[in-house]
Amino acid sequence: PQRPQKAPPIENRLPCNLSDLYKGATKKMKISREILDAGGRTMVVEEILTIDIKPGWKKGTKITFPEKGNEAPHIIPADIVFVIDEKPHDVFTRDGNDLVMTQKISLAEALTECTVNVTTLDGRNLTVPINNVICPGYEEVVPREGMPIPKDPSKKGNLRIKFSIKFPSRLTSEQKAEIKRLLGS
Amino acid sequence: PQRPQKAPPIENRLPCNLSDLYKGATKKMKISREILDAGGRTMVVEEILTIDIKPGWKKGTKITFPEKGNEAPHIIPADIVFVIDEKPHDVFTRDGNDLVMTQKISLAEALTECTVNVTTLDGRNLTVPINNVICPGYEEVVPREGMPIPKDPSKKGNLRIKFSIKFPSRLTSEQKAEIKRLLGS
Repeated sequence: PQRPQKAPPIENRLPCNLSDLYKGATKKMKISREILDAGGRTMVVEEILTIDIKPGWKKGTKITFPEKGNEAPHIIPADIVFVIDEKPHDVFTRDGNDLVMTQKISLAEALTECTVNVTTLDGRNLTVPINNVICPGYEEVVPREGMPIPKDPSKKGNLRIKFSIKFPSRLTSEQKAEIKRLLGS
Repeated sequence: PQRPQKAPPIENRLPCNLSDLYKGATKKMKISREILDAGGRTMVVEEILTIDIKPGWKKGTKITFPEKGNEAPHIIPADIVFVIDEKPHDVFTRDGNDLVMTQKISLAEALTECTVNVTTLDGRNLTVPINNVICPGYEEVVPREGMPIPKDPSKKGNLRIKFSIKFPSRLTSEQKAEIKRLLGS
């Protein structure tokens, strides 16, 4: 007899919050599938597939449940595959193992000092004081506050804070004169 | 008899200065090619091909000299094709019909006023005074100082001036106090 063919795999997107990918999470996915009973009749059953998301998993990671597709005569059921996708986050974007955020600051803060308050993906409050002059393109790097590295979740990427500097839209001629005096021309 | 085949076209890059593409130019290219004399013998001749570059031509423009390739029995000579390429310019980059340049200024100039001096591609001196506050991303547009538009060289694109703002690398605490007072915090 001919060797039974295997049905092609069925892929499903699995959108995850960045905090799930940071902390790890367990997702239970309910599927309904057709199986063949002992008499060869088709019946529909529901099953729960449990996906154990590991800290640091990246977009595109695939989790395969072998042969969890529909059963049918003379065919090997398909694999069910879940593909990790990353939901956009309000504050952070991910760049490999790093997290990147942009802080809006005034020009006065850029030139004097400022403090960035960040709530981490596991809910801690970080306070990052910056006393350097913050020029356009400046990046403050906070070590080990990025995403966990899947091979060794005790290690982490960095948090990179970028800045959007809001300039005053207009200055009086007195202010301009003082700025010239203060910063040289 | 079989219809003679045509040899595939021969392409050559023709690197041009941005100012040639702005003003237009005539380029004379010397080629040497084999021709067949009346007796069917091959001889090498030199020819001058004249290329009339029109103001506003873009990278990728092709100029074809039909059948200027080598002559040989039973074959139609190849077309010689020149493909316009754009040499990098020290000051300007081209974006379609616009010219783009980046001017370095100090923070004091960004906040007070500055003047940009530009030598155009046809050698005129432009003076562009700017009294607005120049924030990161600010673009000063000078109408009709871009590249000519080939279909109507009396029309031109714009010159777009971008800015790179040099911040002071450090400020004294007195300067910081004055900036806070001046710009608010």
